[in-house]
Amino acid sequence: MISSTSNPQMKYLRQLMSKAKLRRQEGVFVAEGIHMVQEAPAGQITAVYCSESFAAAPEHQDWSRRLEPEMVSDPVFQSISDAVTPQGILALVKIPVHTVQELSDSGKPLLLLESLQDPGNLGTILRTGEGAGIGGVIMNRTTVDLYNPKTVRSTQGSLYRVPCVITEDLATASQILKEAGYRIYAAHLKGQHFYTEETYTSRTAFLIGNEGNGLTPETTSLADRLIRIPMEGKVESLNAGVAASLLVYEVYRQKRQGVSDDK
Amino acid sequence: MISSTSNPQMKYLRQLMSKAKLRRQEGVFVAEGIHMVQEAPAGQITAVYCSESFAAAPEHQDWSRRLEPEMVSDPVFQSISDAVTPQGILALVKIPVHTVQELSDSGKPLLLLESLQDPGNLGTILRTGEGAGIGGVIMNRTTVDLYNPKTVRSTQGSLYRVPCVITEDLATASQILKEAGYRIYAAHLKGQHFYTEETYTSRTAFLIGNEGNGLTPETTSLADRLIRIPMEGKVESLNAGVAASLLVYEVYRQKRQGVSDDK
Repeated sequence: MISSTSNPQMKYLRQLMSKAKLRRQEGVFVAEGIHMVQEAPAGQITAVYCSESFAAAPEHQDWSRRLEPEMVSDPVFQSISDAVTPQGILALVKIPVHTVQELSDSGKPLLLLESLQDPGNLGTILRTGEGAGIGGVIMNRTTVDLYNPKTVRSTQGSLYRVPCVITEDLATASQILKEAGYRIYAAHLKGQHFYTEETYTSRTAFLIGNEGNGLTPETTSLADRLIRIPMEGKVESLNAGVAASLLVYEVYRQKRQGVSDDK
Repeated sequence: MISSTSNPQMKYLRQLMSKAKLRRQEGVFVAEGIHMVQEAPAGQITAVYCSESFAAAPEHQDWSRRLEPEMVSDPVFQSISDAVTPQGILALVKIPVHTVQELSDSGKPLLLLESLQDPGNLGTILRTGEGAGIGGVIMNRTTVDLYNPKTVRSTQGSLYRVPCVITEDLATASQILKEAGYRIYAAHLKGQHFYTEETYTSRTAFLIGNEGNGLTPETTSLADRLIRIPMEGKVESLNAGVAASLLVYEVYRQKRQGVSDDK
């Protein structure tokens, strides 16, 4: 049992939780909590740690034993945990590697994110995106790290199921999508049409901008078309997660209701 | 100038920021930051406090002087502020009093919230609700307090413009709405129809449940109809703020596109 906070594995875990660069170098992230460990694809798990009291609880015996967790004393587990009240289990999970080409092959709706900063928004986007049946999310490097503990938690497991690509360059990604027959829409205050006035019959991707500043002009110029979410009152913009949710669910509605170009 | 953290007004402000019960008794809340003070209806402001360095900045002279702020030393302002980096201004604002009857008179879509716990979700719901042109939000007493600093901030000013009622009893509120011709829909996993299959031609209200547990059976029974947001993949539920956003924007879409019962 690991009973020292200065144990090298514990140090490594703490660093993995706080350093995006290390996660990227090592190709792993930390998934904490019962739900996030249970949902992790078994083949992607490289190590599991659980607290002494977690291991002692009879209700955890059946499934957690199969993962052969390394035991950690309760105080040490508390020291590595990102949670206020740790459930007592976490896993090291391999970061899956996808390509833009692969996402475009799905033909499903895609989201392209520019520099989103709020982990909760990114988590919500993955969760709602999965609900709406999207094919994946492409985000630039300056978007909040998908594998930081806050984002991981807020996806509620969707990050295991929605393929994601982190790219240096949204322009190249857009080019690949266009060649695969995608039409790229930018959610933009200057959009000429409302998002509900478009018919999303061809392959569809949406560009979503940073919470405070929206899309940069360079990224906006990658869009085939600017669309707008109408707003009453004095609201200047919607939350980025809400905006993305409305767009992907509109595509999903049109698909379900068989909306066609000549509606 | 107030230069002691033990000044009675400073103590009062700190208590107002942390205690929902005191806010309710006193009928006031604290709105912090330039945007939140500028957006506050002038007639509802009962006091304004600003930091020494805020008052010294030339760009704040014009508008803030008219509010006759009480000056507070920078360290003391930091001690009362809820922000990591305080902008240096806050106001005491009267809590507006609305009734369910008044909200129902608007005829506009309404939201009924049961025991929502996340300040960010409540803020998002007000903000998106304003965007979709709703007539107000009714929430039960066990919903996170609308006037706690986190919620106030996350509404980005919508709480000044979307009438809200905090009620002891959602059943009585529902009764009033029904008598005013409202049809009440509950967003529920057991809903028979998708939310996009309903036509919201009569007056419309939506019941939204707690993040973790959804609606209680008692509150669900207040609904005329259960509706469901379809979900692909393994998603069990959407974020409560996203769910409410999809519903109110669907009503707004139907209204804009002139969807009628015989579509």
